Amino acid sequence: MNLGLQSEELEKIRLFFEPESVAIVGASRTPMKFGNTIVKNLIKLRYEGHIFPVNPNADEIYGLKSYPSVSHIPKRVDVVVVAVPASQVIEVIRDCGQKGVKAVVVISSGFSEAGEEGIRRQREMLSVARGAGIRIVGPNTTGILNPYNNFTSTFVDLKDLKKGTVAFIAQTGMFAGTMTEWIVSTQNFGFSKVAGLGNKSDVDDYEILSYYAEDEVTKVIIMYIEGIKNGKRFIEVAQQLAKKRKPIIVLKGGRTKEGARAALSHTGSLAGSDEVFDALLRQVGIIRANDMEDMCDFAKMFAFQPLPRGDRLGIVSISGGCAVMAADACAQSGLTVAKLKPQTLAKLEQRIPHWARIDHPLDVEPLVETMGFTEGFRIALNAALGDENVDCCLVSLGAMGGWSELRDIDFLLEARERYPEKPLSVSIIGRKDIYEQMAHDIEQASIPVYFNISRAVNSLAVLFKYKQYLAEVVDDV
Amino acid sequence: MNLGLQSEELEKIRLFFEPESVAIVGASRTPMKFGNTIVKNLIKLRYEGHIFPVNPNADEIYGLKSYPSVSHIPKRVDVVVVAVPASQVIEVIRDCGQKGVKAVVVISSGFSEAGEEGIRRQREMLSVARGAGIRIVGPNTTGILNPYNNFTSTFVDLKDLKKGTVAFIAQTGMFAGTMTEWIVSTQNFGFSKVAGLGNKSDVDDYEILSYYAEDEVTKVIIMYIEGIKNGKRFIEVAQQLAKKRKPIIVLKGGRTKEGARAALSHTGSLAGSDEVFDALLRQVGIIRANDMEDMCDFAKMFAFQPLPRGDRLGIVSISGGCAVMAADACAQSGLTVAKLKPQTLAKLEQRIPHWARIDHPLDVEPLVETMGFTEGFRIALNAALGDENVDCCLVSLGAMGGWSELRDIDFLLEARERYPEKPLSVSIIGRKDIYEQMAHDIEQASIPVYFNISRAVNSLAVLFKYKQYLAEVVDDV
Repeated sequence: MNLGLQSEELEKIRLFFEPESVAIVGASRTPMKFGNTIVKNLIKLRYEGHIFPVNPNADEIYGLKSYPSVSHIPKRVDVVVVAVPASQVIEVIRDCGQKGVKAVVVISSGFSEAGEEGIRRQREMLSVARGAGIRIVGPNTTGILNPYNNFTSTFVDLKDLKKGTVAFIAQTGMFAGTMTEWIVSTQNFGFSKVAGLGNKSDVDDYEILSYYAEDEVTKVIIMYIEGIKNGKRFIEVAQQLAKKRKPIIVLKGGRTKEGARAALSHTGSLAGSDEVFDALLRQVGIIRANDMEDMCDFAKMFAFQPLPRGDRLGIVSISGGCAVMAADACAQSGLTVAKLKPQTLAKLEQRIPHWARIDHPLDVEPLVETMGFTEGFRIALNAALGDENVDCCLVSLGAMGGWSELRDIDFLLEARERYPEKPLSVSIIGRKDIYEQMAHDIEQASIPVYFNISRAVNSLAVLFKYKQYLAEVVDDV
Repeated sequence: MNLGLQSEELEKIRLFFEPESVAIVGASRTPMKFGNTIVKNLIKLRYEGHIFPVNPNADEIYGLKSYPSVSHIPKRVDVVVVAVPASQVIEVIRDCGQKGVKAVVVISSGFSEAGEEGIRRQREMLSVARGAGIRIVGPNTTGILNPYNNFTSTFVDLKDLKKGTVAFIAQTGMFAGTMTEWIVSTQNFGFSKVAGLGNKSDVDDYEILSYYAEDEVTKVIIMYIEGIKNGKRFIEVAQQLAKKRKPIIVLKGGRTKEGARAALSHTGSLAGSDEVFDALLRQVGIIRANDMEDMCDFAKMFAFQPLPRGDRLGIVSISGGCAVMAADACAQSGLTVAKLKPQTLAKLEQRIPHWARIDHPLDVEPLVETMGFTEGFRIALNAALGDENVDCCLVSLGAMGGWSELRDIDFLLEARERYPEKPLSVSIIGRKDIYEQMAHDIEQASIPVYFNISRAVNSLAVLFKYKQYLAEVVDDV
């Protein structure tokens, strides 16, 4: 049972993500127009359902029959995407009501973000929609993306979509679009679902969260929000997600007085006190990201790794400098540098030159002198992960020109297999072309890679904090 | 006059960076050996001076005549690079003394970082060197890099070197090498000089800083340090650099107890109290970076932009969401969101659709509706920069597939020309292939680009803080 939503309402939310048919009002043959790119995206990405362009001035668009209005479409329409000027939107909603449509994505801007006239228009649109039992995503948004059926309402020209386990919810339209493109083009984890809610006139975060709670492919949720309308419902759904062990990572716009003022003029959101918001998040185990990069860093870690049993970090490093920075990051992020058992150190001690010493953090350099990079890393990482005083491990690698041996990552895959319960995080510094290839290969094996040691450690710390929250609040209940 | 060093000592430091001849002891024909890559780098990068390989078992290496020892070389040798096992190093230093060499880079490890035996060896090496008036960089380091004469002692396989204005000093060897490769391969600003000091047995940070103070091409200095040996001298030189308006950005390893412990076992440095260190840095206007990315972000800003008159930030954004995040970052980093003059807003008001409003931060969307992206950004950015209440400006761009108009950056170059005294910072989010190309083009014009709004704003804030330090401490004296 879904605590957040009545099942009828949840079914309407589901329509936004899993429609079997879509009408695009404002579908256009003119390149660069929103109504053009939306249709092109659906065709190019091979959306699995029926596509009905709506444009009174066209007979067909990209080979698809075009209709003068939604109510002219002879088949069932699960969702309507509206990309016409704001002044025409209410008429379209009325037409949707006549057709019996229950889910509408309003792409158009010119509503609550656009002065008194826009606010009135948004109010009227909502009243028409409610009268007809229609739910609205938007207005002023790029809307929905579902890589599992290739449905999208976005007007951003999309390339291939990687299926994954991370779901995204963003207030604000353009930003949701560019963020989505940023994540798709830089991250090896894929999306399960994306929802840009724009002005959030109707469908709210907590409703999307309710759907994500039920969505089997969604394991992690990232959010950009400027304001929460229904705090009570939001908390209920967040608790439900915690019980399902689906972490939520939130990036909040309007944290400061200055940001809140900008948010008010942007999506018309009242951002509220940041202290209150922060306390609310902590209460339900929501993880807070400080910026876009944090949000992706944490999402990747949760998508790829199990939760650690404890906070004791093993560090295996290509250089002493990286080991020092890792130890600093460990202490600063709330993890502890693991104390390796004497037996573990003694075993390694046997394999290094007589002049060298072995200590934790493990600088692999002395091992490399006797057995080369690959074997040195293999021995050191297995020793760290095999030590019962270690809960999770950072591996700091280098990507240096000419040292092809460094690119051999089999030792990581082997360690992953052997100690699947201990989360791993990898950092690489060095030459970009090399480390990007290494990162791609390593992340194919679901081991997260960061190009900054403090990010690699901090992301593990966030994993531990979530584990702690579950242990203290959820599992004890 | 150089306050930090007597001129004779400074001349020895200069030899490390500007040698007219170099001997490589341990030069090798075997690929992957340090002594091989060092010689190859010098040849490949077209080092301008004479190269003398030293290897008793070879007649020539890569077509260069090889000598059995340094003292066998018939010409003057300005600097010697030593890449033989630790146990042979002291003998080499004696030989250098006999030849009258004054500058030696010891690449080899197995000294103070390697137990009691290593500590004794380092002490003995130093005593031999001092007796002969030899200065030592290292041991346990990649050493020196100078893109202006293509001299290097590094064993990391280097590609092309971009000449620039940023000088780097790093304790610790391998880390200096990988950091250098990271910066060279990811940044469009170039290096003026790089010095990896390894264990810092002899030549210390403050001496390199003294040389950088005199070095005409160096404008900005970045440092990774684990410990400072001579705090008094360090402060003197830092003050001297502030008078020359050359900012120093420091990343400190061993900030925490855990990190300090790792640093002790790594370079044998006593990291000292972080609070004391922090106070010391602030006193001389040194900027502190929290991690590698910070260090590069700030360096790029100083390398490319002038100092702002004040702290009032103008924000011109492609999306409301980005504007909100920029306003948050502004407040959090210690800048203030500029209050634009009524005339500025009124002028823009005339150019947007009747339903829209204009406010600062400037969301360009309404302007884009009437005049397209390029012109919208041009009008908005010129309005912001032309307003006397604006000291510096953030431009938040998007890189979205299919919208080629977004890639037109002429408006930025134009604004740069028109308002050269107001620092600009650009952030881009969107698709990686597009934003990397845009960033390359924009940074060719010396406008720094960040792929995270908070980084773009924070780097401007650091610029302002340095300006404030100069105004309060240096210019008032």
